[in-house]
Amino acid sequence: MTTSNNQPGAATQRGTEIDQRCINAIRFLSIDAVQKANSGHPGAPMGAAPMAYALWDRVLKHDPADPKWHDRDRFVLSAGHASMLLYSLLHLTGYDLPIDQIKNFRQWGSNTPGHPEYGLTPGVETTTGPLGQGFANGVGMALAERMLAARFNRPGLEIVDHFTYGIVSDGDLQEGIAAEAASFAGTLKLGKLIYLYDDNQISIDGDTDLTFTEDVPARFLAYGWQVIGPIDGLDVDAVAAALRKGRAEVSKPTLIVVKTTIGYGSPNKAGKASAHGEALGPAEVELTRKQLGWELPPFEVPGDVAEHMRGALARGAAAHEQWKRLFAEYRRAHPEDAAAFEREVRGELAPGWDKALDAVHATFDKPVATRAASGRALAGVTQVVTSLAGGSADLAESTQTHVKGRPFLSSGSYGGRNIHFGVREHAMGGVCNGIALHGGIIPYCGTFLIFSDYMRASIRLAALGRYPVIFVFTHDSIGLGEDGPTHQPISQLMGLRAIPELVVLRPADAHETIEAWRVALARRDGPTALVLTRQALPLLEGAAWRQTSRGAYVALDSQRRPDVILMATGSEVSIALTAGKQLQAEGIAARVVSMPSWELFEAQPSEYRETVLPRAVRARVAVEAGTKLGWERYVGLDGAIIGMHGFGASATGATNMQKFGFTPDAIASSARSLLGKGKS
Amino acid sequence: MTTSNNQPGAATQRGTEIDQRCINAIRFLSIDAVQKANSGHPGAPMGAAPMAYALWDRVLKHDPADPKWHDRDRFVLSAGHASMLLYSLLHLTGYDLPIDQIKNFRQWGSNTPGHPEYGLTPGVETTTGPLGQGFANGVGMALAERMLAARFNRPGLEIVDHFTYGIVSDGDLQEGIAAEAASFAGTLKLGKLIYLYDDNQISIDGDTDLTFTEDVPARFLAYGWQVIGPIDGLDVDAVAAALRKGRAEVSKPTLIVVKTTIGYGSPNKAGKASAHGEALGPAEVELTRKQLGWELPPFEVPGDVAEHMRGALARGAAAHEQWKRLFAEYRRAHPEDAAAFEREVRGELAPGWDKALDAVHATFDKPVATRAASGRALAGVTQVVTSLAGGSADLAESTQTHVKGRPFLSSGSYGGRNIHFGVREHAMGGVCNGIALHGGIIPYCGTFLIFSDYMRASIRLAALGRYPVIFVFTHDSIGLGEDGPTHQPISQLMGLRAIPELVVLRPADAHETIEAWRVALARRDGPTALVLTRQALPLLEGAAWRQTSRGAYVALDSQRRPDVILMATGSEVSIALTAGKQLQAEGIAARVVSMPSWELFEAQPSEYRETVLPRAVRARVAVEAGTKLGWERYVGLDGAIIGMHGFGASATGATNMQKFGFTPDAIASSARSLLGKGKS
Repeated sequence: MTTSNNQPGAATQRGTEIDQRCINAIRFLSIDAVQKANSGHPGAPMGAAPMAYALWDRVLKHDPADPKWHDRDRFVLSAGHASMLLYSLLHLTGYDLPIDQIKNFRQWGSNTPGHPEYGLTPGVETTTGPLGQGFANGVGMALAERMLAARFNRPGLEIVDHFTYGIVSDGDLQEGIAAEAASFAGTLKLGKLIYLYDDNQISIDGDTDLTFTEDVPARFLAYGWQVIGPIDGLDVDAVAAALRKGRAEVSKPTLIVVKTTIGYGSPNKAGKASAHGEALGPAEVELTRKQLGWELPPFEVPGDVAEHMRGALARGAAAHEQWKRLFAEYRRAHPEDAAAFEREVRGELAPGWDKALDAVHATFDKPVATRAASGRALAGVTQVVTSLAGGSADLAESTQTHVKGRPFLSSGSYGGRNIHFGVREHAMGGVCNGIALHGGIIPYCGTFLIFSDYMRASIRLAALGRYPVIFVFTHDSIGLGEDGPTHQPISQLMGLRAIPELVVLRPADAHETIEAWRVALARRDGPTALVLTRQALPLLEGAAWRQTSRGAYVALDSQRRPDVILMATGSEVSIALTAGKQLQAEGIAARVVSMPSWELFEAQPSEYRETVLPRAVRARVAVEAGTKLGWERYVGLDGAIIGMHGFGASATGATNMQKFGFTPDAIASSARSLLGKGKS
Repeated sequence: MTTSNNQPGAATQRGTEIDQRCINAIRFLSIDAVQKANSGHPGAPMGAAPMAYALWDRVLKHDPADPKWHDRDRFVLSAGHASMLLYSLLHLTGYDLPIDQIKNFRQWGSNTPGHPEYGLTPGVETTTGPLGQGFANGVGMALAERMLAARFNRPGLEIVDHFTYGIVSDGDLQEGIAAEAASFAGTLKLGKLIYLYDDNQISIDGDTDLTFTEDVPARFLAYGWQVIGPIDGLDVDAVAAALRKGRAEVSKPTLIVVKTTIGYGSPNKAGKASAHGEALGPAEVELTRKQLGWELPPFEVPGDVAEHMRGALARGAAAHEQWKRLFAEYRRAHPEDAAAFEREVRGELAPGWDKALDAVHATFDKPVATRAASGRALAGVTQVVTSLAGGSADLAESTQTHVKGRPFLSSGSYGGRNIHFGVREHAMGGVCNGIALHGGIIPYCGTFLIFSDYMRASIRLAALGRYPVIFVFTHDSIGLGEDGPTHQPISQLMGLRAIPELVVLRPADAHETIEAWRVALARRDGPTALVLTRQALPLLEGAAWRQTSRGAYVALDSQRRPDVILMATGSEVSIALTAGKQLQAEGIAARVVSMPSWELFEAQPSEYRETVLPRAVRARVAVEAGTKLGWERYVGLDGAIIGMHGFGASATGATNMQKFGFTPDAIASSARSLLGKGKS
């Protein structure tokens, strides 16, 4: 009864028999993989298989042979614990994910980890598992699509025209990041975003009524979403019809409420929390096979199912081919835009971006806050790099993350490149991750360093998935002044350094700031955090800042082998330089090292590192207006650290710096003590 | 036209003239303090003064002479940037906050920091500023009130009976933590929670329409709240009437939408974002004085205003006296409960708590996960300490944070002490902070260590405000296994150690876990984080674990001065012990140090620290399945660290531990290398 249809996106009524067999194939790949691993989440794939099948078989535009085709629909499994649902779909529709990978679910070295990981498994669009993140990523993808469409599409030549779909769970919808992202998506009227809500009324602890009694549809209506349903999650046609309705509403994101049964088909576990997070067990797997009439041994996919599901390959190839023809036409009509499009979706920067930064250096002639220097870097580089877009969580002026003269993004103007994220730091992170994952737009986002805590889970996922997001964190220490301890970051800077694969830069002046932006822009395979001051900083003398990208460099050298090394970052470098000069005047061979980035320094050859911090010189003083923890890496057991021990104070920045000991005298005194020249 | 009324809570119609004068006094104290500091937020106090006045003058039950009276109403200024509104109210109603403190707003050493800080200023109920946190704190306070009421009230003797009020801003309501907390409060039907929403339609970046177009009232209705308004924020009577209506609805929290004008009274800045975050400027201050008819010099409070506002003292004294009489009656009728009530609101543990923990030790006879040991500690201690209450963010079984046999808390049963927080980590943190601030209940909460990132902003505020919250973080490393990198914490443990005033313990076995609970329970002036394994760990031999509270101790000593010190925490201690024994068998004097808590160790006398880690022994190997960053504190420049560099892997925990180098052989080999005995 199967009819094939090469037109992706068109819904086709199909006979229920093959539908059911395909759905059960998805279920049993999931069940059997979890059982073999004896670990994982069978219940969600069993309940959500019909809706996922409806989407993937009847609606989703994708080319399994080319998972990176840029105008594919995006699919986000926000409920990442249902990873086997996604792996089953990828395997069955012809992605490069052979059955052996399914059999090695959750094992060392496999491409099928417990939760989906971007970059590891072809067809996985984002790393999910921590709940709510995928929800926000999808919002970012849908936003990036609209932004690119506004930039590149021409009448009749809509080279950017895809949907973003997702499956979201109760858990996703309880998370604050999803609430923030939903409000943001509603404000921006992202009509091409469609989420299937797997409403199984079960969370890990039991029935969702225990603690989730809110009216979810009413909440999403309040955000400005279209809400469809509840519909029956077993009814493939109903899901397909709801998806069509979602696609038809162009000015609102859509939430489709799909009533499902977790662990559907399991006689003893269906509808129960016990189906959620552990293998069903051999006996229950057998009973489920009986109940669903599935006679095949584990991991065996019937021929008709394989053939039907692999229809995705032909449909995908046809759709992709059609797009290529469209793009060829586009290229003929708009060759420069076509070239720009291709460059930008590859993630490359527009030529001249480097020179644009060079030019900014010349504009500095007096003390300037590094946040202001960052603003100038942005202003300069966005003249050339039009794919750079971003904003802040309601701190545009304070963080200097909006570019004057560039229009703001809004629901009526997706061509805008300044983004108002609202007071929604966590969603800002998740949305920027999604923008980066989509490609074509290089996202940056800003808030105060203290509020990096609000978005830390998203920053970590950017690092894990190596998304090229640029995080701009200003007001980076007690130097911010009177806002007080609630706003003064102590643990945050070191906390960011603790995240693997995140490059953190805390520049010491305007010049280092421009170079920090150069590093961030050039880094296309992972996230970068820029940590900037509120207060003005003197310009460093000379041109040693040209070594910023080495992570650390000698900013002031002693004339002989150093007796003592002072090292600092950011606003403390100038203070350390003054201290270094005092010590030199006293005949002490003091060296001062500026260390804008630990990660970059540690990536240098050991020879270079030795030239900066000779192993033999053990009298070392580190200075940073943040937690001391971590600086022992460079000062060891015999050095000294001038850092913070408490939470700061509400007072002027200058008062704070003085009261907490960030003064040339205190630094020099500490150095003398180390050298046994206690002058203090 | 003023009538006085000694009955707090009763709304009284008052003549508008004195109302307006009081409101303007609040406004001008705020305006003048911000102007003198030349820093701060005048706009919100100017707009919200009438609603705050209506609440404080007509409704709020409090005793300015005794800010710690336990049955006072709680007031939360979630929009903490409006701190001068609160300081003005505290000063005018007779709290110990003299005018000199107002004049020293935001200055070094004052009690009037930029944002309100609990513990610093009498009458400040919670530390706010980071948006959304106060919203969640208030939910915790309102919940604690219901929980205590269920525990202690008797018919006609309602010794626990107060409301929790707050002023929340657009920014608060955009934050995910507020969304989570609102859903939680709705689920629990916290009818004695009433928030005034200062709906001024302005955020820092401009009009809220830019990015906040959602229907807030509809959203709160969806959460199960009563929503009143919008009402006119200048109409004191309307605010008072709305508060009455809020109090009358006993089964739903109430949000009162109050339309206000930011910077009200300023001819040129009213209604504009420019009124938000900076002083008005001397000229505009003068124009505002004219516009509002306020002729007095800065910081001068007219006699009639002072007298009227200080009516709070008499009303408060009367209400407090009335409560004391009620409590005396309660004590006569229920002497044991009265004693328990007094002890518990003082934050003291029930006698015998210590012995209850002692008894748990005896139950261990085989390897056990530290999360399971923690569950046993909870089970044991809650038999005695009935004031201990908590739960998890939908991970009750996994984190072992629910106590079997204790009822669950629900809207129908506030006597429950197991709490379902839902998948809402951030609100869980903020709510537990509020419970701790309220007093009478000792809160704990659990999730996976990886998700501590979601609630980090709340953990930090617990540390800043020294709230005695116990955070239970399980699944603490790659040892958790197949869930994979999305769930494997790398940066989190060290990230927690970076937070000042937070005591972090990562116990090495069941016994250390019990002792860690002892530390956490005894610590009543700050938060504690327990970091626990998913996987079973062998029991440590001997009884050296009795020294857990010293933070680090010698778990295996060498027979002579150590050649090498191995140090480890948590699951790595047993591995290090095996390595130490291997080395000893080879004739190497190896010492093994278990270091459950850096903070506790660093609080020890230097003599003790020297006995554990003799300064002269520089061959040191640290072992921890987390980021290496930070361990240089103990191994210096000459030691070695066996830690994580990437993000982990999806594989069994045992495989991970082996593949990432957490084996006795790898540790021993590293030690030998340090000693120049390269056997590897």
